Amino acid sequence: MNEKFLKTAEELKPKLKRRTHCVSGEYILGENDCAVYDFGDHFVGYLKLYFSTVGAHFDAPALLKVKFCENRQEIDEDTSAYYGWISKGWLQEEIIHIDEFPCAYSFKRRYAFRYVKIEVIAVSPKYKLKAEKAEVRSLTSAKSTVKLSGGDKLEKAIDKVALKTLSECMQYEFEDGPKRDRRLWLGDLRLQALTNYYTFKENDLVKRCLYLFAATADEEGYISQCVFTKPEVSPDDTSMFDYSLLFIPTLYDYFKATGDKNTAKELLPLAKKQIEIAKKQFDGDVIRDCDRLGWCFLDWSLELNKQAGAQAVYIYAEKSLIALLRELKEDCADYEKDVVLKSKAATEKFYDGEKGLFTSGENGQISYATNVWYALAEVFGKEENALLLGRLKDHNEAIKPVTPYMMHHYVEALIQSGLEGEGRKVLRDYWGGMVNEGADTFFELYNPENPDESPYGGKAVNSYCHAWSCTPSYFLRKYYEK
Amino acid sequence: MNEKFLKTAEELKPKLKRRTHCVSGEYILGENDCAVYDFGDHFVGYLKLYFSTVGAHFDAPALLKVKFCENRQEIDEDTSAYYGWISKGWLQEEIIHIDEFPCAYSFKRRYAFRYVKIEVIAVSPKYKLKAEKAEVRSLTSAKSTVKLSGGDKLEKAIDKVALKTLSECMQYEFEDGPKRDRRLWLGDLRLQALTNYYTFKENDLVKRCLYLFAATADEEGYISQCVFTKPEVSPDDTSMFDYSLLFIPTLYDYFKATGDKNTAKELLPLAKKQIEIAKKQFDGDVIRDCDRLGWCFLDWSLELNKQAGAQAVYIYAEKSLIALLRELKEDCADYEKDVVLKSKAATEKFYDGEKGLFTSGENGQISYATNVWYALAEVFGKEENALLLGRLKDHNEAIKPVTPYMMHHYVEALIQSGLEGEGRKVLRDYWGGMVNEGADTFFELYNPENPDESPYGGKAVNSYCHAWSCTPSYFLRKYYEK
Repeated sequence: MNEKFLKTAEELKPKLKRRTHCVSGEYILGENDCAVYDFGDHFVGYLKLYFSTVGAHFDAPALLKVKFCENRQEIDEDTSAYYGWISKGWLQEEIIHIDEFPCAYSFKRRYAFRYVKIEVIAVSPKYKLKAEKAEVRSLTSAKSTVKLSGGDKLEKAIDKVALKTLSECMQYEFEDGPKRDRRLWLGDLRLQALTNYYTFKENDLVKRCLYLFAATADEEGYISQCVFTKPEVSPDDTSMFDYSLLFIPTLYDYFKATGDKNTAKELLPLAKKQIEIAKKQFDGDVIRDCDRLGWCFLDWSLELNKQAGAQAVYIYAEKSLIALLRELKEDCADYEKDVVLKSKAATEKFYDGEKGLFTSGENGQISYATNVWYALAEVFGKEENALLLGRLKDHNEAIKPVTPYMMHHYVEALIQSGLEGEGRKVLRDYWGGMVNEGADTFFELYNPENPDESPYGGKAVNSYCHAWSCTPSYFLRKYYEK
Repeated sequence: MNEKFLKTAEELKPKLKRRTHCVSGEYILGENDCAVYDFGDHFVGYLKLYFSTVGAHFDAPALLKVKFCENRQEIDEDTSAYYGWISKGWLQEEIIHIDEFPCAYSFKRRYAFRYVKIEVIAVSPKYKLKAEKAEVRSLTSAKSTVKLSGGDKLEKAIDKVALKTLSECMQYEFEDGPKRDRRLWLGDLRLQALTNYYTFKENDLVKRCLYLFAATADEEGYISQCVFTKPEVSPDDTSMFDYSLLFIPTLYDYFKATGDKNTAKELLPLAKKQIEIAKKQFDGDVIRDCDRLGWCFLDWSLELNKQAGAQAVYIYAEKSLIALLRELKEDCADYEKDVVLKSKAATEKFYDGEKGLFTSGENGQISYATNVWYALAEVFGKEENALLLGRLKDHNEAIKPVTPYMMHHYVEALIQSGLEGEGRKVLRDYWGGMVNEGADTFFELYNPENPDESPYGGKAVNSYCHAWSCTPSYFLRKYYEK
């Protein structure tokens, strides 16, 4: 653990903005009855429920199930049927006893929710429960932002939901999702930071997160996929090939947004380290196959072959490093040479000249993930990339994006390739689809063709407010506002 | 509410004796694993569990079910199958989340238990739970007592369990049971007080409880079956014919034990009121039938006809009142006249000369409850009562006692009728039966012929430490010590 970096991170720990929101509504509830409080918007915070009774003096504890739902469809979802591989501990529900009435019951755990469902498991024949009101003390480290000046009704709606998504995920760190995992992940951080520069401008929070990753790099300098902050700061024991590399563009973006040369210089050795370490995963200039590569994320698709995409992320990250080195007027010759070799090898190994698309793995799998990352890595020129993305769209068997994380990269690639109109259409269709489903915040996973999609073996643990889906506010403000 | 009485009661609120007991024992637990901590004795108090993890950094909350068991057989009992009429809220179990490790988890609710079972509903694939130790901060208002000087091994064992039972039920009030209802009931109070005079001698706690009942009598002066003390002192909305009357012997016993004439005199008008109010339930000198009488407890037997027994309790209570009036040198002529009439009417109406037993109801039901109360009420003389109880024992169809409460009255009746040896045998067999089953405290219900007996529709809510079963310490010390 780098104590100096840790100290910098801790000094930047933000104060949270706290607000109280109340929903009134009286419900008289007997055994097996239930009531739902609707806070009208998504909140992250601490719930307090107010109860009294009707009937005779309460002569037994009330036993209640209280369920916190980010999304209307969760209200009636049977969470007991969830047996996926992600811990049931993430299900936002508690079984509670109320021993005395009247009672203002304060939940000790933080939850992310719009709806609170109260189910009465037991009262007694002598009394009924009266739910009187619900109150949430909400938390965020996002202070304020300005409204989107351009855009039509749909884009304004998308922007509002995106801002809410980001601000809900801004706590003591940039969290991936306030329901689950409530944790700083590198892939999420990069997109949150990008959007933050155009919106809340809490740039010190980005700096804090960069230093948390830097502080927890391993002895070799390898950066973890995510950082725990409780009970104390420590790295996850796992790294992902792409996430570690994305430390570099995250640092570069931060430098571009803030001009903070000191931070860029202080963290530059670690940025270089990520390339150095990733380079070991190459045989010559071609990345290892998936079996040997370890985990590379790209998208939450279990069928996705990551080999070619991993090499594209490497090229993308190395180009960020070169750009940063140039800005800092440092030598980048070796990286320039390397990136040419890696780009050339990638084209030779993965580009199918006949199909005009990048493929991955032994079976030549074609996916959005692979091709989008090659477009972003600018292995080809702008016009060629536009053609590549056009062919990708026409290729019906291409594995499609599952997450808003991958969709972000697709939209970014379209814009970068000069297809701003197409990018805007994708943004309106995809994020607009969630808005049309009544989203207050954007989801972790959204596949319009399969609403029940979950990589976790059950969607009860899916998160409906997820950092990596906040980037419409970035796109709309950076590219489409004027 | 009588504020003066309430003030007296509140001034007598005891300080609780608090002690910490610890069980160590490390268990490494994955999903669906469980562990049991055995505290080696029954405790009433607040549990703290100490947890850490093994494996990688915890990346999800642990979800646990923690079950508190008074009795070994409860450990594997399936409480989810309980659908009785008493609230499931009494089941001593909680579903809890542990969000951070290491963690000392303090339960906010008081429990009554010897065993604590921890079941892991969920951790994550990355870590296992380590249960490290368990700690209880126990509570009682019983300070100290002396050991039984006489008695053999069995009686010493019975006495020990009885003392533990009583002391566990001695909190801010005499509770009926620390698992359920945790409340001051008159029938229980009377037996607890009796035992207390021979053991812990916390006589101010009896006085406090008498004043709690007195303070919460209704406008007419009728005393409730039980008193709530949370959130403030208030009576139950129900009274039981026998329990209200038992206020009188409870007051008389208190006076005999303490000589506290002020209390006796202050509460005497209320004692008289109970007779006056109960008298309205008579047609002439015969008690109304069960349909019109309202609830009369006698025993937790749903088939029991209470009519004749209710009249016996009335006679018993009226005789206590007469005795108290005599002690206080007050006029008791009217009560003496009345008790003769009621005794005569009872004999005429309920005594079956042919069978030599008291019967109850239209179908002439014969039960221990009815006959024992006639023996206690001394409607006949001592020798006749001994014969009555002998015939009762020989009458195979007589409805037997279900509760230690009724068994207490049976033993008392045997002793009072000169059958000390038989009383001692019943005591040794019945309470000794529970000791032989490994009881640390005596149960609410114990029917050796039907171990699954429960008046609640399921024994999961049965209490295994119940005040009304503490009286062996009274019998052993009062009658059998020398």
